[in-house]
Amino acid sequence: MGVPHLMTLADLSTAQIRTILRHAHNLKQKTLPALQPSSQFILPASDSLRFKNIALLFSKRSTRTRVASETAAMLLGGRALFLGSEDIQLGVNESVRDSARVIGGMCEGIFARVGAHEQIEELAKYSPVPVMNALSSLWHPTQVLADMLTLHEHDYFADFSKEPLSRPSFHASNRQYTNREHRWLLPELRPLTIAYVGDSANVLHDMLVSYPRMGHQLRVASPDNLRYRAPQAVWDRVVKLNCDKNILWTKDPLEAVHGADLVVTDTWISMGQEAEKEQRIKDFQGYQVTEQMCRDGGAKADWRFMHCLPRKSQEVDDEVFYGPRSLVFEEADNRKWTTMAVFDMLFGHWDLDKIHVSKIRTSNRTRTPSKAVDLPTSSKSTGF
Amino acid sequence: MGVPHLMTLADLSTAQIRTILRHAHNLKQKTLPALQPSSQFILPASDSLRFKNIALLFSKRSTRTRVASETAAMLLGGRALFLGSEDIQLGVNESVRDSARVIGGMCEGIFARVGAHEQIEELAKYSPVPVMNALSSLWHPTQVLADMLTLHEHDYFADFSKEPLSRPSFHASNRQYTNREHRWLLPELRPLTIAYVGDSANVLHDMLVSYPRMGHQLRVASPDNLRYRAPQAVWDRVVKLNCDKNILWTKDPLEAVHGADLVVTDTWISMGQEAEKEQRIKDFQGYQVTEQMCRDGGAKADWRFMHCLPRKSQEVDDEVFYGPRSLVFEEADNRKWTTMAVFDMLFGHWDLDKIHVSKIRTSNRTRTPSKAVDLPTSSKSTGF
Amino acid sequence: MGVPHLMTLADLSTAQIRTILRHAHNLKQKTLPALQPSSQFILPASDSLRFKNIALLFSKRSTRTRVASETAAMLLGGRALFLGSEDIQLGVNESVRDSARVIGGMCEGIFARVGAHEQIEELAKYSPVPVMNALSSLWHPTQVLADMLTLHEHDYFADFSKEPLSRPSFHASNRQYTNREHRWLLPELRPLTIAYVGDSANVLHDMLVSYPRMGHQLRVASPDNLRYRAPQAVWDRVVKLNCDKNILWTKDPLEAVHGADLVVTDTWISMGQEAEKEQRIKDFQGYQVTEQMCRDGGAKADWRFMHCLPRKSQEVDDEVFYGPRSLVFEEADNRKWTTMAVFDMLFGHWDLDKIHVSKIRTSNRTRTPSKAVDLPTSSKSTGF
Repeated sequence: MGVPHLMTLADLSTAQIRTILRHAHNLKQKTLPALQPSSQFILPASDSLRFKNIALLFSKRSTRTRVASETAAMLLGGRALFLGSEDIQLGVNESVRDSARVIGGMCEGIFARVGAHEQIEELAKYSPVPVMNALSSLWHPTQVLADMLTLHEHDYFADFSKEPLSRPSFHASNRQYTNREHRWLLPELRPLTIAYVGDSANVLHDMLVSYPRMGHQLRVASPDNLRYRAPQAVWDRVVKLNCDKNILWTKDPLEAVHGADLVVTDTWISMGQEAEKEQRIKDFQGYQVTEQMCRDGGAKADWRFMHCLPRKSQEVDDEVFYGPRSLVFEEADNRKWTTMAVFDMLFGHWDLDKIHVSKIRTSNRTRTPSKAVDLPTSSKSTGF
Repeated sequence: MGVPHLMTLADLSTAQIRTILRHAHNLKQKTLPALQPSSQFILPASDSLRFKNIALLFSKRSTRTRVASETAAMLLGGRALFLGSEDIQLGVNESVRDSARVIGGMCEGIFARVGAHEQIEELAKYSPVPVMNALSSLWHPTQVLADMLTLHEHDYFADFSKEPLSRPSFHASNRQYTNREHRWLLPELRPLTIAYVGDSANVLHDMLVSYPRMGHQLRVASPDNLRYRAPQAVWDRVVKLNCDKNILWTKDPLEAVHGADLVVTDTWISMGQEAEKEQRIKDFQGYQVTEQMCRDGGAKADWRFMHCLPRKSQEVDDEVFYGPRSLVFEEADNRKWTTMAVFDMLFGHWDLDKIHVSKIRTSNRTRTPSKAVDLPTSSKSTGF
Repeated sequence: MGVPHLMTLADLSTAQIRTILRHAHNLKQKTLPALQPSSQFILPASDSLRFKNIALLFSKRSTRTRVASETAAMLLGGRALFLGSEDIQLGVNESVRDSARVIGGMCEGIFARVGAHEQIEELAKYSPVPVMNALSSLWHPTQVLADMLTLHEHDYFADFSKEPLSRPSFHASNRQYTNREHRWLLPELRPLTIAYVGDSANVLHDMLVSYPRMGHQLRVASPDNLRYRAPQAVWDRVVKLNCDKNILWTKDPLEAVHGADLVVTDTWISMGQEAEKEQRIKDFQGYQVTEQMCRDGGAKADWRFMHCLPRKSQEVDDEVFYGPRSLVFEEADNRKWTTMAVFDMLFGHWDLDKIHVSKIRTSNRTRTPSKAVDLPTSSKSTGF
């Protein structure tokens, strides 16, 4: 049996994605009470990383990814060990191969944010422990998992026919989740129309290989220039997964948002692209997400907005970004819970197929062996 | 109920300050034995930060503040997550508002060392969790709390009439505290005359809004130039708290130290002021704290010395700094315990009025719910 | 009783070195099962650093030393607090004396990687807690301890006459150690011939003061230039320990590897020596370790190879480095276990003479007082 890795959502089956989301939702529901002021709970939802260290190899900085992973590792009983570009320069002082073997010999997992995607493939090739992609030039799987969890948690996107009774009334702040019986059940989604307006970058790429095979429609607008289209390596994965049938690609933002339940964008100028700033701002004229644009394009009346952050006002105005349509901070919060779920499954158990639950009693911390279980689901998913 | 924050000691009542100091003293007494070599104790004095992460947003470096906060969070069962200026540039890549909401959505507290004080006010405005000021252009509350604890622990400053029996014989090193019954009682202070000789900076500002209303006299010497006087925003707080009546301000260091029990100074050239170095050294001619200066000015025979560190020899000579009058390293040690107390109250319990005590048995880590208690006090304070 | 420190293996008796190695081997055997995926064990092998913080003062970066120390501290229940050169510049903003006292007042140990060796001596002079040398201009004790443990674990170097029954069948990867009774016994070494080919730097210096008094022969080749010879301060320690009798020093690599069981090298251009790069590459012509060189020089047929990493191909070719003779990754893995052993003994117990074992039950974490024990040994060592 080889070492499991996670490079992109294209590596996962829809069943695996669904299992991760269920687990993330469950961990969130069980852990949030313990984080309240004066909490009386000491239970960890899982402690599969007890005594384990996860190396964070970050060649670029990221607030969200870093804070999500450090807090997630801690909640699992383990520790994230941050190594920035001053600490380790992959391939500079030492070959990627040697670094992978050495760090993998002392840590129990590697969460890497690299530049070129080839670097993380090289890490995975030589690491004796699982490697998870925190962000690369091609993919950003943890962001799209967080987005999916956010969709599942919101009434607007719900398929009530599949789960008529048990849906929680969701509060915008994840700090005040309504208690309910069966709150660990992941609500079902109805088929959605999802518009993406902007540059074809890593977040979109993981959307392209996952949303369509879960029964959703993707409508993408990007300027008429190959540099803003998905690279061939990405499109090959899209086609192989039969996702291309559910994707419309246009240069017209108004066409993209037509009928949209959800409008997504991202920064136009990623780290390292500052030199192209002027050209990019010119090319993305008319791409700013606003109420007017979505009205003109014919988005659904209750459309919602997502952005992976950090945000510049050029790509979305304040009215949308800080308004009631915006789910941007819920997405950010959910980075923590989806990262925690994947850390638990990939680094703690080397198993992305099943959820392993530890029986941990809160009173005296007696711990019985963990075992894989199937958590109850409200219905058998069809779209997934 | 809003989210509580701590920006300056001016935000606290004298009762709250006293409660924090009592709690810090108590935590110190209970925790020190567990830190001895081969210690057999596993009790934490409180574990209110269990599974909780405190974000340290430091736009400037600081050895003391950082080590104090990281060790304090750890002793409370939690974790400090250090984010330096390379990790996050407040207001540069992302608005302070967005960063506050995102970090506050994944961590249970924010301890921030910013430049301009407005930044931390902005953080507090948008954070869903408590924000504590680690140092700003205007205030430095954690340093003055540590100084106060140091004064309370020393016989020279004691009001024996209020506590005739229970005072411990203090050892200079906080590693060898004499065991005693009732050692958790915070000794009382007699009314003191406290001289500050130097620049009006953040440490002095928190002295100005706290010592006078606790019954002590402040005598401040700074050069005759507005740049070395407290800014209006600070002085407004001083006046509002009725502290101005107990403050003498002069340009003559000899006048300031007259009758002093304690002489305090700080660096003349803070981080970011290196360009003004030459001018500042000229302006502070005659301000170096020495035995001779204090003899000439008429300080009390047993005067003691404080400095928040790091120290340059220009502001105090070696004889005083390394001599028996110096409390500088006790102050530094107490940064840890006062930070631990505030972390416990503010981040763990969102409550700066009461001490919450966890009943944690050492033998099997059974934990009963925490509750607020009033620790015994030796007497009712009048000066506080 | 003073505070114990560890600057170089020259500070230790052979009995102390042996005790550290036995303890490291034991910790490794007991801890590895807990680090497996889905591990059901929660026992720490020792938790002497519970609630304790170890300051890592690193004026230069190091992947191996940092990851080893952070993971080791965590396994002992404590925390390593990394302070890089941007966090603290020893002797720049504050005197080394003041930093030692302040950091030692808030942490329970200091693990320091400095430039000039005098700096760590100064730290040790003023620190109230133990200081351990992570690497200095003169010494690198933790690397040589890891090398020694690696030798003890390999069949090729074993003295089977002393331990006929209990030797484990070792797997190259430390992740798949064969279970066996008495697996905690440290196997005995036969007298070895050890060749070092390269610059006289800190790793070699700790070899010079330790291998010879343990009964091994050292054969060193370095260019005929004083800059590549051990400095007088090091050689004085070598002579004082009677190690010089077992050391041959030559400028001919072929002569050095004659009869060698083990060939060791290191980088020719250490951090800070980049300016001398061209001259150094010229001076070390003919020093690259290859199959041919060792055949020509007459090394033993089964000679093995060591390198402390990171490696440049100039000092050893791929055939040797990635081949079956190479122990380089086992050495790297063992940095963690030897660091853990010394942290436990020096920082946890202030005792480098005896192993203190905590009785920690896995079921409910009840903890009885730790006590010093003598672990069973298979035989009385003579060579040590």
